[in-house]
Amino acid sequence: MDNDSSSRIVAQLKEWIARAAPGSRLPSTRALVAEHSVSPVTVQKALQALTAQGLIESRPGVGTFVRAVRTARPSDYGWQTAALRSPQAPLRSASAAMRSAPNDVIALHSGYPARELLPERLVRAALIRATRGEAALTRAPAAGLPELQSWFAHELGTSTPPGVTPPGASDVVVLPGSQSGLSSIFRALVGSGQPLLMESPSYWGAILAAAQAGVRVVPVPSGPDGPDPDGLARAFEETGSRLFYAQANYANPTGAQWSVRRGDEVLEVVRRHGAFLVEDDWAHDFGISSAPSPVAARDDSGHVVYLRTLTKSVSPAIRVAAVIARGPARERILADRGAESMYVSGLLQAAALDVVTQPAWQTHLRSVRHQLQSRRDLLVTSLREHAPQAHLTLVPKGGLNLWARLPDGTDVEQLSADCERAGLLIAAGTEWFPAEPAGPFIRLNYAGPNPGAFPEGARILGRAIQENLR
Amino acid sequence: MDNDSSSRIVAQLKEWIARAAPGSRLPSTRALVAEHSVSPVTVQKALQALTAQGLIESRPGVGTFVRAVRTARPSDYGWQTAALRSPQAPLRSASAAMRSAPNDVIALHSGYPARELLPERLVRAALIRATRGEAALTRAPAAGLPELQSWFAHELGTSTPPGVTPPGASDVVVLPGSQSGLSSIFRALVGSGQPLLMESPSYWGAILAAAQAGVRVVPVPSGPDGPDPDGLARAFEETGSRLFYAQANYANPTGAQWSVRRGDEVLEVVRRHGAFLVEDDWAHDFGISSAPSPVAARDDSGHVVYLRTLTKSVSPAIRVAAVIARGPARERILADRGAESMYVSGLLQAAALDVVTQPAWQTHLRSVRHQLQSRRDLLVTSLREHAPQAHLTLVPKGGLNLWARLPDGTDVEQLSADCERAGLLIAAGTEWFPAEPAGPFIRLNYAGPNPGAFPEGARILGRAIQENLR
Repeated sequence: MDNDSSSRIVAQLKEWIARAAPGSRLPSTRALVAEHSVSPVTVQKALQALTAQGLIESRPGVGTFVRAVRTARPSDYGWQTAALRSPQAPLRSASAAMRSAPNDVIALHSGYPARELLPERLVRAALIRATRGEAALTRAPAAGLPELQSWFAHELGTSTPPGVTPPGASDVVVLPGSQSGLSSIFRALVGSGQPLLMESPSYWGAILAAAQAGVRVVPVPSGPDGPDPDGLARAFEETGSRLFYAQANYANPTGAQWSVRRGDEVLEVVRRHGAFLVEDDWAHDFGISSAPSPVAARDDSGHVVYLRTLTKSVSPAIRVAAVIARGPARERILADRGAESMYVSGLLQAAALDVVTQPAWQTHLRSVRHQLQSRRDLLVTSLREHAPQAHLTLVPKGGLNLWARLPDGTDVEQLSADCERAGLLIAAGTEWFPAEPAGPFIRLNYAGPNPGAFPEGARILGRAIQENLR
Repeated sequence: MDNDSSSRIVAQLKEWIARAAPGSRLPSTRALVAEHSVSPVTVQKALQALTAQGLIESRPGVGTFVRAVRTARPSDYGWQTAALRSPQAPLRSASAAMRSAPNDVIALHSGYPARELLPERLVRAALIRATRGEAALTRAPAAGLPELQSWFAHELGTSTPPGVTPPGASDVVVLPGSQSGLSSIFRALVGSGQPLLMESPSYWGAILAAAQAGVRVVPVPSGPDGPDPDGLARAFEETGSRLFYAQANYANPTGAQWSVRRGDEVLEVVRRHGAFLVEDDWAHDFGISSAPSPVAARDDSGHVVYLRTLTKSVSPAIRVAAVIARGPARERILADRGAESMYVSGLLQAAALDVVTQPAWQTHLRSVRHQLQSRRDLLVTSLREHAPQAHLTLVPKGGLNLWARLPDGTDVEQLSADCERAGLLIAAGTEWFPAEPAGPFIRLNYAGPNPGAFPEGARILGRAIQENLR
């Protein structure tokens, strides 16, 4: 309500400002309070919004005035073409999966869970507590808050089998989100121009980070059971690569979860080639009909570099993740993080730790799992009924997405555009392939807003696929 | 007090755990409440701390148990040596200026202002408001919150002279700290292996970011009046570089502020060579006896890339900065940020905007200016009296630091170590030189804790210099 009044005053003052001469004095706060029958705080808020928009300026003790708006003349930045040269590695822009959607469309395109799947009360309470503490005004250590490092190490340690040394707190580097971790890992452990093996299809953010780091991506095909160990061995031998990037649990986009045996086979191939496995455990909190089983828990020889994020399950505003690595690899990653951003906001770290150590966090995760299960099942059923041409190779045991193969000859970009016109957002599979797509695929997120619209979304998709093939 | 009780319980339970067998059940919360005469919240807090440290685990509905601690065996990560190869650009570790200091030493080494110079009440109130809003649970746009982009553009626009087009909100990219901006700018606008001109001495963080980006740093000498325009022109011609990194106001470490005329001369040289000036306005909020005058405000042809941070003046936990750039340069920087970290926490952005748009923010900045003035003057006087061998080329008109040249032959690393043993932390000047130091320099921060100890610090320094020369 307070927000509404403030917006109303902003709108009215904007009209007034549009007609006023630059330098005109605005009515006093007292006059505005009386005119709009609101509190001084509401008026102050409106004035702050107008100040932020550059429309007014206040001179303390004097008053608030309309700013002189200068007329912009068009500029030619053509000279920059020479200074910038051709890009060393052209960076794709952010994925379609990052698009914000208006409320009235059916949004199956996103990579994030919907607002109602977030632990809103836990997050707000944790932020309030963190705000009151030291973390709000102090610098955090370069590798992260020690308590949070411990928590990350402990979590992975709980999956460590007997005889394997669990990671320690000092193996952990806290990150401002897992994307930053990917960038640092590829820069620090592979280096510009060197080959990097990557599952195909694979997370578009990892493909982007690899391009930024200037590494050469070598795709390794990966199916519902993960990559073929012999194929992986061949790729290591052919390229001399020393690093394989993969998602062993609920891979994005395929949803594949490696069996323990497959994980051990991959680990063995990686060890034999004196290489690293970068395990991106992006959906650790989103197991549905299985529990995540990190390969990293079964390695204590420094071969697995483990990436774990809290951003997706806690809140997109709490950008906190961690990399767990041992030996010199960890030191290289930490040095790269130092050069890139020095340290991660201690406030966000304290809030993240607070959330995940509350008993209610476990309760929340159980509830999310149940909701993801119903949503996944509803979308699968809807597709089978209304869009049977979208073939699911796998009903994933966790994660947020379905990966569907469409009939040969489908133009997925055209299909996405057709669906969008009919009120449905989907993600064309193209972005998940480091090189050419292996076929016409789409990714459908079942964690978005309004699952009630899944049947309608499937109907739109089914019709659009048929029309696309005509 | 609550914190104290909780720490006391943690300490006592740790002793108990050390003697207990793995799997032993801890006393119930109720029993601990009774035993320590504290609230259940305090007990819960203690148990959370122990959980985070990996010492106990709770099984909901059953109880809390001592975790089995596994014995770690030493590992040999020697195989990584082959996988990692020699580093492409060895990264120095974080600067001595980032060290935390114990309370009982005189700390003149740091790069940050002391806690008492931060707007604590504004920061906490802003964070509480941001926590209650949408920003706590939603993803922010890639280039930043539009209102914050506007604020940054507007601030630079207030210094724009007539006839020059001020920057618009869409020229702004919000960053998670200015270090990330340096990394992105050097990667996006210079590129690996290409030459980058940089003032010498210059900010160690910029030198570090340049090493990470793999660019070749070419030092351009800079004195109390800034760089010599002819020398700068020669460096552009000799190297073919297209980018010059500099701090035109209160440079770190020298404190130099360029005159308007010098700024225009530098800008002219930069334009003539079809190049960029990266202006790092790190101390915009720390003018003392002058106001900062950004060169960027006098350019609308896309030649100046402007970097402005709020982290130092608002709070080290609110990592928010911005880069303002026009034309394709801005697009390259934004694409690099996308690949590196996708977006900046909207919560921190909302809190930063809240702080800087409060009327009390201006009052706070005035108070900080007065405090910095007294502190600067006290340290200058103390040095002149007790350490006259430390020659100040300049009493800076703003910023946080004094830059002192010591007698020829002084070993500054040895001097730092001697001072530290006597209870004084200083920063050896070595780190501020992209190549060899031009002489024995030290940097002294007058914004640290406890300015009352400045005379004593100067005494320790004076004695150490004398002993160092013997």
